[in-house]
Amino acid sequence: MDWALHDPDDYRRALEGGISGVLSERPEAAGHVVGIGVDATSCTVLPVTEDGTPLCELSAWRGRAHAWPKLWKHHAAQHVANRLNEVAAERKEVFLSRYGGRISSEWYFPKLIQIWLEDREVFDATAAFVEITDWVVWQMSGQQRRSACPAAYKALWSDVDGIPSVDFFEAAYPGFAHPGAKLGDAFYPLGTRAGFLRPDMAHRVGLPESAAVAVGNVDSFVSFPGAGAEGTGAYVMVVGTSICDLVVHPQEILLAGITGVAKDGIVPGLFGYEAGQPAVGDMLGWFGDMLAHQGGDGPAGTLVELERSAGALSPAQTGLVALDWWNGNRSVLADADLSGVLAGLTLQSTRADIYRALLESIAFGNKAILDNFSEGGLGLSEIVACGGIAEKSPLLMQLLADISGLSVKVPASSQVPARGSALFGAVAAGPEAGGFAGIAEAARALCPPTRSTYWPQRRATATYDGVYRVWKDLHDMLGRSQAAWLHELKRLKLLAVPGQGQALTTKEVI
Amino acid sequence: MDWALHDPDDYRRALEGGISGVLSERPEAAGHVVGIGVDATSCTVLPVTEDGTPLCELSAWRGRAHAWPKLWKHHAAQHVANRLNEVAAERKEVFLSRYGGRISSEWYFPKLIQIWLEDREVFDATAAFVEITDWVVWQMSGQQRRSACPAAYKALWSDVDGIPSVDFFEAAYPGFAHPGAKLGDAFYPLGTRAGFLRPDMAHRVGLPESAAVAVGNVDSFVSFPGAGAEGTGAYVMVVGTSICDLVVHPQEILLAGITGVAKDGIVPGLFGYEAGQPAVGDMLGWFGDMLAHQGGDGPAGTLVELERSAGALSPAQTGLVALDWWNGNRSVLADADLSGVLAGLTLQSTRADIYRALLESIAFGNKAILDNFSEGGLGLSEIVACGGIAEKSPLLMQLLADISGLSVKVPASSQVPARGSALFGAVAAGPEAGGFAGIAEAARALCPPTRSTYWPQRRATATYDGVYRVWKDLHDMLGRSQAAWLHELKRLKLLAVPGQGQALTTKEVI
Repeated sequence: MDWALHDPDDYRRALEGGISGVLSERPEAAGHVVGIGVDATSCTVLPVTEDGTPLCELSAWRGRAHAWPKLWKHHAAQHVANRLNEVAAERKEVFLSRYGGRISSEWYFPKLIQIWLEDREVFDATAAFVEITDWVVWQMSGQQRRSACPAAYKALWSDVDGIPSVDFFEAAYPGFAHPGAKLGDAFYPLGTRAGFLRPDMAHRVGLPESAAVAVGNVDSFVSFPGAGAEGTGAYVMVVGTSICDLVVHPQEILLAGITGVAKDGIVPGLFGYEAGQPAVGDMLGWFGDMLAHQGGDGPAGTLVELERSAGALSPAQTGLVALDWWNGNRSVLADADLSGVLAGLTLQSTRADIYRALLESIAFGNKAILDNFSEGGLGLSEIVACGGIAEKSPLLMQLLADISGLSVKVPASSQVPARGSALFGAVAAGPEAGGFAGIAEAARALCPPTRSTYWPQRRATATYDGVYRVWKDLHDMLGRSQAAWLHELKRLKLLAVPGQGQALTTKEVI
Repeated sequence: MDWALHDPDDYRRALEGGISGVLSERPEAAGHVVGIGVDATSCTVLPVTEDGTPLCELSAWRGRAHAWPKLWKHHAAQHVANRLNEVAAERKEVFLSRYGGRISSEWYFPKLIQIWLEDREVFDATAAFVEITDWVVWQMSGQQRRSACPAAYKALWSDVDGIPSVDFFEAAYPGFAHPGAKLGDAFYPLGTRAGFLRPDMAHRVGLPESAAVAVGNVDSFVSFPGAGAEGTGAYVMVVGTSICDLVVHPQEILLAGITGVAKDGIVPGLFGYEAGQPAVGDMLGWFGDMLAHQGGDGPAGTLVELERSAGALSPAQTGLVALDWWNGNRSVLADADLSGVLAGLTLQSTRADIYRALLESIAFGNKAILDNFSEGGLGLSEIVACGGIAEKSPLLMQLLADISGLSVKVPASSQVPARGSALFGAVAAGPEAGGFAGIAEAARALCPPTRSTYWPQRRATATYDGVYRVWKDLHDMLGRSQAAWLHELKRLKLLAVPGQGQALTTKEVI
């Protein structure tokens, strides 16, 4: 159940079908397109041949699981990540400090090394192991120009130090030599032009061959300029099934408890910081699914009703607090083996109480992230929230404001990421072709209007300050001083379910 | 919302209607009735005049809230209980050790002192403040013979020390003199004959005037002989909305973490020990209500389905543990300000997982009580479970067996308490009238057959030993070392709900 594979042809079909679909609504626009930007999930990676053909599309390899793309949420390389973390910590590897002290099993090298460990033939037949965003750009432009952004956030690369040393990999996995052989060594900053649309592709989708193609980007990151944010002080939250938080700053500050920091990672010229919460819309949907029933409103209608009834409650009235660790904790604890907690339950607790406690837990978790940034010297003055939940849950937006004490601005665009990618396409085209010289200029020129601004309510903020202290005590108790407790609970569960025993028994496996 | 009053006429009507109803099914039985036993909730108490007339039935007092019976679950005297506990602890009062170190706001003196504090006129007009079980016996027999059982468990009385001293009450509430004035000073052991059925009552209900009436008993306690248990080694659980645990032993052992110990309290001649868990059927019903929906199976059908699906899971498979403190904790923590906790939640957690975790939390809480008895020298060899949930949830019965390692016997009688009361009626009649000489003899002669016996499953017990250790760590963390955390959460809630602020701010009130 930890595996997650994908068919690469889905991307080709979505790309061609998507462009044709948009152009059919605005046929007169096709001739005015000067550039194309691409964003995709990351780290979603696939093994390809020299010419970019996915191994899984060749009959010799179709039947081999490791020949297929591994989706970002493929978690079956957790033991590799654990091993790399352990060895990196022992060797005091400097790269760890750029990732809050811990790398994730979702990233590039755990996935690559899993192939090396489990199917050496597929590994040997792989000429390059590429991010899906880079592969899509390659398909569109004919150019293999890898983006610096996923390389920095997911492949442990920095423009100062390159990738971790051969010695490090040799210490962790003797024999896994030449770690960069399938990664390449040239990485291009965001906004760089990878090339122009390949003539056959241009023909198929109905766009001019003169359209520039920008190097690939990552789905959440493009929301930063897409939401109209330009620089330091803005805290952009992409609020969907999970939350991705984005911050930029002129200096590199090595902070514990963040997902990563990378130069040019979000906006060229600045250091980009990423943090996040891994269960948001997913957790709310889980609760809606549990309460929903056949013949009723279904999960969506149930959530609408919960949003209404929870909105009628006051701060602290539920008597409940939750730790939103339904999918582990990304920031500030970086611990995937934690799980969710609900405390304060009584015979009077209602569905609305629990739903509100879940929303509050998201906002409390977010305050812990904001405080971590601000204690690290990254002061933030405003929250910009986009993504599906930013539109669907005004109550969550108000709670984010009340609990953080910052205003929350929701842009009036339901396509913030697409808008952000388009801006990078315009930068890749350049001003001479009618695009822009830089992303800040593009973001400013095409900043979406504001749909709503949520201001913190003074009384609510004062009440929530008290609840936050109580919440933070539980967070620190079960997430830090007694974190072994939830780990032990998970270990017992894995032992009880046949075939699930390996994830927490790394040392025995290695 | 902490108040709970009742109309005393309900008891008269239920009594007369109940007897007539039973006799209409078995008219030939009326002439053979030799004795009647009564049990009622406790501490349910009412103020009456010299002749037993409830104050609330006199027009002068009808409009005064304190003139009405206070039901056992009236919790508005919590501040009085807190004050009495504080002063008793300071003065090292020996009576405290009979109640596990803490008296409850549900008991006799907190309720009486609340009247004294809040309505002195009602207090002064009260000739006697009596347990409802004693009042019903008084109505039936014309005799005011108070039972030693509720006096010992709820009015701090012991046959060695009497009630707490005037000095103690004076230290807690200066001016509240003569604490025993409205309680009386003669208390009769269970099985004593209070008198015979009053002629007018005998006529109305259709029973012979020769029928003996036993002194009053308390609802859960009668289940001990009613279930066929006779003596030491048996652990009788009455499993309904809450759980009451009953144990008897020849010695008085002063144990922390029990509700109380009283000589002759359950069975004459032995010390009776009571412990319990305050949210069982109530907690399961809460979950069923939350999931149920209009037009569906309703809460009852939902629980049937949950029982089925949770039964298909294995020990430890849910990855969840719960603390069953939905209504506070009675044993072994004796802390009403604790509340429920659910931990280990993930996006994969199902309704059935949560339901099973709730059942397991009941069984883990029960193991903590059993271990406390056995560490105190009260070894137990068998569980006898009766009450509604003992029939409705075979899964809970199996979990009680698996988690405790003891067999669980469920008697084949859905009227165990009524059967127990009837046995005391037969003892009050005595052998000369066709009854019994003692309760042990009566229990043996009329022991109900066994409906089912649940044996502990070795593999499950081994797995649950590991889960219990984890559960116990959380229990001790949030119930002992960090108990202030859930208290603070409750305090914040009370502050947030207008008019609910007093319960935890005792010192300011006094």
